Parts: sequence; C-alpha cells; structure tokens
Amino acid sequence: MPHLIQRRNSPSLGLLGQRKPLGVVGGMGSLATAKFLEVLARKSRVETDQDHIPFICLSAPNIPDRSQAISIGSDAPLLQILERAYWLEKAGCGAIAIPCNTAHLWAKEIKQALSVQLIDMVEITRQAIRDSRGSEAHNFRSISLGTRASMQNGLYVTPNENALGEQFFRSLTKLEREAIKIIADVKSGNITDAQENFTRLVHAARSFAPDKIILACSELSAICGDLGDDSDIVDPINILADACIDWWIAGSHTFGEVGGLDTSAFFREL
Amino acid sequence: MPHLIQRRNSPSLGLLGQRKPLGVVGGMGSLATAKFLEVLARKSRVETDQDHIPFICLSAPNIPDRSQAISIGSDAPLLQILERAYWLEKAGCGAIAIPCNTAHLWAKEIKQALSVQLIDMVEITRQAIRDSRGSEAHNFRSISLGTRASMQNGLYVTPNENALGEQFFRSLTKLEREAIKIIADVKSGNITDAQENFTRLVHAARSFAPDKIILACSELSAICGDLGDDSDIVDPINILADACIDWWIAGSHTFGEVGGLDTSAFFREL
Repeated sequence: MPHLIQRRNSPSLGLLGQRKPLGVVGGMGSLATAKFLEVLARKSRVETDQDHIPFICLSAPNIPDRSQAISIGSDAPLLQILERAYWLEKAGCGAIAIPCNTAHLWAKEIKQALSVQLIDMVEITRQAIRDSRGSEAHNFRSISLGTRASMQNGLYVTPNENALGEQFFRSLTKLEREAIKIIADVKSGNITDAQENFTRLVHAARSFAPDKIILACSELSAICGDLGDDSDIVDPINILADACIDWWIAGSHTFGEVGGLDTSAFFREL
Repeated sequence: MPHLIQRRNSPSLGLLGQRKPLGVVGGMGSLATAKFLEVLARKSRVETDQDHIPFICLSAPNIPDRSQAISIGSDAPLLQILERAYWLEKAGCGAIAIPCNTAHLWAKEIKQALSVQLIDMVEITRQAIRDSRGSEAHNFRSISLGTRASMQNGLYVTPNENALGEQFFRSLTKLEREAIKIIADVKSGNITDAQENFTRLVHAARSFAPDKIILACSELSAICGDLGDDSDIVDPINILADACIDWWIAGSHTFGEVGGLDTSAFFREL
C-alpha cells in the first residue's frame, strides 16, 4: 500500500475536513492541557471517533511563569503565548483556546493581536458566575483559588464583590500560600500530595461559607477529581470546554485559501 | 504591549526551543489521546511547566474506523494516518507517537513512509511483555483485550503463545464482544457504563488466571483508572509514554532549516 501514498501538497480539506479545527495553546501546564482535552472529549457527547472536535494542540511549554512575570511587571509570557497562537492560526485553526487562567490576564492583548477568535475562558466563566448569582447578586460570596497573580489581580473575584468578612481576609494569605504549593506540586508531578492538600484547601475555603469556589488555576482543575462536580465549585476548564463545543456546533469554520499548511517543501512521491 | 509584538517569520527556535518536539497523531479516539497526554505529563517527573516535553498533537479524527477497515481488507485509515504524520513531520516534530493500538497493524508501512522515527507502541509493548516473561516464557499466559482487529490479528498475543485452554477459547467471542461494547461506549462518552463493564471484563479475564492482561485498545487505557496499576495489567499507553520520555531525554532533536513552520504568508506587523 505505501507505494500508493503521496505526500500531499496541501493537507487542508482532506486532513481536517471542511471545518477549521480548534487551536489549543498548551503547556501551561502540561497536565492541565491534558485535562482540558479530556473534558472536551467527554463533554462532546458524540457517537463515534470521527464526530469529535478536531484540534491542533501546540504544547511548547518554554513560556516564562505567568504569575512570576506579572509580579515583576513583565509581559514576557505574552510574547510567547502570541507566537504559539499565531502558529495555530497559520496552521488553519478557526479559534484559539488557552487552558490557563493566569494567561488570561493578557486576554485583551491576545484578542487584539489575533485574527481568529480567542474563546476567552475568564470572560465566559465570569458570565457563568454572574448568571448563577441571579437575584442574590448583592450578597454573593465567592472565593477564588489560584496563582498569586490571579488571586491578587482579581481575575475572577474583585474586592468589592467579596462579602466574606474580616476573618476571611486574615486567612487569605494562608489560603493563597496553600494554593500556590498545590499548583507547584501538580506541575512537578506530586499528584497524590496535591490532591490531598487540595481537598483540605477546599474544606478550609468552605469554612467561610462561600456561594462559589472558583478554581482559578487549571492545575487545580487537573487534579480536582469528583470535587469539581460539586455544586459550589466553578471549574473554568469545564466552562471553556462547553464554550469550545458551542463554537464548534455553531460555526461554519471553513478553510480558506490561506488556512492550509503549506507542505510543498516536503512534497515527494514515496 | 501589543505594538511591540510582531508575527515572526519563523517560529522555530524561539517557539519550540532547540529541540524538535514530539508529534502526536490524535483522535483515535479523542479521550485516549487526552489520556496519553495526561500520562506523558504525569510520568515526566520534571519540576516546572517549562521542563515538560514539547509536543504538537494533531487530532483530526475523521479517520475511518481502523478495526472495520481491516475487517474488509481496506487500507483507507493508513492514508489518513500518514497524512497526519507527514503534517507533524513538516511542522518540525522529531518523532511520532500514535496512541492507538489498532493503527499499529500498519506500523511497518508508517515507518517506511516517515523520515522521522515512529515510537512504535506495539513493538515496545511486545518487548516489555517478553522481558516480563523471563524464564517462564514457555508457560506464559496472556489475554489481549481490544478491538476485533487487534484481537483477531494477534496484535499482542499470537495463537501459539496462548496456553489458556479450551474453556478460554470458548469464551473468547464473548470477551471480544464485551470489549468492543466498552470501546464504543468510551468513544461515545458513556464513561460510567464503560468503567463498570470494564471492571467486569477484567474480572472475567482474570478467571482464566492469565499472567498478564493487555489493554490492546487505548480506549480501555483511557478509562481503566487504578486497575491499570495492577501488576497483571499491561497498559501500552503507559509504555508509550515512557518511551517518549526516553526519546526526549536521549535525543538532541534540534531544528534544521526545514523544520520550522513557514509562517511567511502571515507575516505582518501589528
């Protein structure tokens, strides 16, 4: 059979069908990327392999630490994230998903720079939180657990929204320190420790009786297990996957002339 | 910040570092792809995000069903798999991994067609099984659970290796039917059913007292949970992840001139 196979000049339509695939900027972190792809597959609710959402995931994890960069006022990660997003655009992707909460502190800049849609995990999660508050908006109590940058920059919870009281604010540094430790453990593969400490952290957060606890770092989503299904937990990775599925169902993201990857340099008959 | 950012003419070195990333042909199926990437991240045992293995995963799942194609003597999936592998080669990948057992029935053709290494999941799993037999090789009893094609074509277990007796052979059709049902449930998102039935299937297989049970379909690996850690279970997805990590550690897969993706068509200043 191999003698019948040619390296095609353009893989576009034959390779990916008539729809532009989803582009995923991975590696922030690698386990969180895998978790996002798992949730995407699980939630798609299609019948066969062939019906699943096509995607290209570029996981080039040599991106400077987002939280650390923000703490020193550096935009270095943004340059790296954009380079990856451009690459996915060029490869023919019709929208970009970034399963990293902290990276969304640059969501505005990323959207301005891209010519395809960024499916903005933080924006849609905020909307989902607003929707869930309903008529209780003025009394809504939420706790965000994530990196120092996402917690201190109010990625999900802005100070005036927080009605958790003085005792909570006294405990905030400790909660933050514990979240950071868990995130580091996930990134370095200490999953058992991370899971045990995460259960304790959620327990501690629940002692302040919040309406919602937001997993503001995808590393926490990666190891939350069944806890993520609890009604008081908001998992942005779940919300992002739903939005990607909605994008796929809604769109007619067809390949244009420039969408296909130019493989002419590799064209040869076998 | 966006005004400082340019779409680079070549993302090669800046984007992926000086090492060629791993290429992953995904979508066979989508949940199995996510599981492989999860295992890869978990097993990497690195300290930070930045140390994880870079990869490009192309999941264009519109590949004809592998098992069905083999049953009618069709090579149609091979053409599709090769197209994806070529795409990954062109994108600059230094080796290709395919987290699908049945696809490896074409491993010889894929290797002949590629100019980079296929990290052959079936070959390395067979080697791992041979190594585990030790001095008991002549009495070694193994059961392979997977698609009809992988079970009937002896992807892992060749008939003369099988010492499980007449009763086992009488039950084989039933085991095969149950495995196929579970695999279909995983592909269509019925994970709870699939997990319950998988536990029962492993229990049934164990009643024949095999030395090893081989998860010969990556959909089974995707839902095996803690069972996959049992000493009598051989999970090729685990073995593939280990081999990819070994490849990464061993290699100096630097980008050549042709390795980078040519993004010139998209070059513009923002």
